[in-house]
Amino acid sequence: MHSFKDLTIQFGEHFSKEHFPKEPKKLYDAASHILNIGGKRIRPILSIMGNELFDDIHPDAFHVGTAVELFHNFTLVHDDIMDKAPLRRNQPTVHTLYGDTAAILAGDVMLIKVYEYLNKVQPHYKQKLITAFNKAAIEVCEGQQIDMDFEDMEPEQVKYDDYVKMIALKTSVLLAASLQMGAIIGGGSDYNQQHIYEFGKNIGIAFQIQDDYLDAFGDPEKFGKQQGGDILVNKKTFLLLKALELCNPAQHQKLKELLATSPDDKVNQVLELFHDCKVDAWAEKEKDRFQQLAFEHLESIAVLSSRKAPLVELANFLLNREH
Amino acid sequence: MHSFKDLTIQFGEHFSKEHFPKEPKKLYDAASHILNIGGKRIRPILSIMGNELFDDIHPDAFHVGTAVELFHNFTLVHDDIMDKAPLRRNQPTVHTLYGDTAAILAGDVMLIKVYEYLNKVQPHYKQKLITAFNKAAIEVCEGQQIDMDFEDMEPEQVKYDDYVKMIALKTSVLLAASLQMGAIIGGGSDYNQQHIYEFGKNIGIAFQIQDDYLDAFGDPEKFGKQQGGDILVNKKTFLLLKALELCNPAQHQKLKELLATSPDDKVNQVLELFHDCKVDAWAEKEKDRFQQLAFEHLESIAVLSSRKAPLVELANFLLNREH
Repeated sequence: MHSFKDLTIQFGEHFSKEHFPKEPKKLYDAASHILNIGGKRIRPILSIMGNELFDDIHPDAFHVGTAVELFHNFTLVHDDIMDKAPLRRNQPTVHTLYGDTAAILAGDVMLIKVYEYLNKVQPHYKQKLITAFNKAAIEVCEGQQIDMDFEDMEPEQVKYDDYVKMIALKTSVLLAASLQMGAIIGGGSDYNQQHIYEFGKNIGIAFQIQDDYLDAFGDPEKFGKQQGGDILVNKKTFLLLKALELCNPAQHQKLKELLATSPDDKVNQVLELFHDCKVDAWAEKEKDRFQQLAFEHLESIAVLSSRKAPLVELANFLLNREH
Repeated sequence: MHSFKDLTIQFGEHFSKEHFPKEPKKLYDAASHILNIGGKRIRPILSIMGNELFDDIHPDAFHVGTAVELFHNFTLVHDDIMDKAPLRRNQPTVHTLYGDTAAILAGDVMLIKVYEYLNKVQPHYKQKLITAFNKAAIEVCEGQQIDMDFEDMEPEQVKYDDYVKMIALKTSVLLAASLQMGAIIGGGSDYNQQHIYEFGKNIGIAFQIQDDYLDAFGDPEKFGKQQGGDILVNKKTFLLLKALELCNPAQHQKLKELLATSPDDKVNQVLELFHDCKVDAWAEKEKDRFQQLAFEHLESIAVLSSRKAPLVELANFLLNREH
């Protein structure tokens, strides 16, 4: 079995090659930029681990890993255009550097390249792999559309359950499918594929709840971000939407006022309100609930528990961070 | 053998089904809009004809046809965003109706759907089909980037040969690959695949020269567009770029002036200049040259000439139109 660290190094070496030709320069400089500013490469590691859960690592796991990492980066490029985001990983975004046209095209080319890598895998499971990938890929686009639709709504119009569904589509199904595709390569049964998929999906939701929690309550020095960044821009988060559900009418009124007026001490006042309506305690429980669900699915997979160790390690790395 | 008309009806019926689910509504309304405003469906017909050139039509030709038509429509949606085009086929463009965000995502979803259809074909030629398709798909994006790069340049900075290469990438390689993919399904040899590809590519270039010619010199009543629409907006066309090469220094000066100042009778003056430097006669010859080249490639394909009849009919339809 390979550890998370081992696989990060192995995949990093594999992925660090040039993915694009030199010309047209603007197009391929734009596409290369997003790949060159780093990233944890979690999704390809999940594909490789999904493979190794059932069998020795096959070179196809690296092809699939490359495909899911390219896809993830394609979504970042197009999402940043839609969000008009100036920065990504502390670097200017692709559209900021190269303009919207080259950014749209760079994303398009990356999405086509995804299928170059999926086309390299062995024929006997190619159809299954592309089907699993495409389902997730379409869901990611649907999740982004729903997120954009939510942007145009008032926070109290967005139901908590709908928000969970959106987050699952936008961020978790690709983690889930990355694992499932690895399992397909490793020869995992349909039953085991389903469980590894659900493991990934629930880990993804738990991660997002933790991310929202840390943005509000995390130690800014350890987290490396300004505390309450989401609160400052009225971002719809697990915490805000649940707070609006949990709080009493007076707190509700106060919270709406803070969102509308943004006073100087908005972050502190909103955090106090979050605390008063116990959304901080709720978030920890909610994260644990999804994490628990994830591990139950991992438990259900009929392989020796030692084979599951790297996945447990990765989940704990993702879900017990303070940074 | 099936005629162009037969296949248009058959494919039209096949393609007219719902391609998308209902929700998220904005995303799928945007994607459906471009499919619902019509189009000649030339590319899928080419795939089916490419198949029937070598063998009876296989259902896979309809899958591939659906894939190339979806891809073509994806490019229209994204290109219209980049060009800030308000109208397409006399209807508002997707981004005009649904905004840039939904238009980008609708294009992305259509591109993913392309591979759903390519994933349906028989395994024994799936890899070849996806390889042929992906090569063309990437070239189309490269062609669009080069076209956008040319937009930022003065007309005399764009070399005629580079313009031909750009047009080939942006518009012709997909026609070529549509035919080639049909030939793969029909069991055509690599040699025959290459010739049918070149046939499509050269027909595409000849078509574009004709399109530019008709915009300038066509009968506006038959052509259905305002005469000289390209001239009015200083569009880089085969005619303009070649005129700048063919004309003498005085004519060159005059042409540059007309582009810069856009007087009321600009169209007439530019047309007179085009005529004086014989770019109208040149365009007819140049179109014939590419058409001739295309037919030489078709000749080289080792099948009974009766099997080629529908392709000859389609080429003549495309290249002898006055409308």
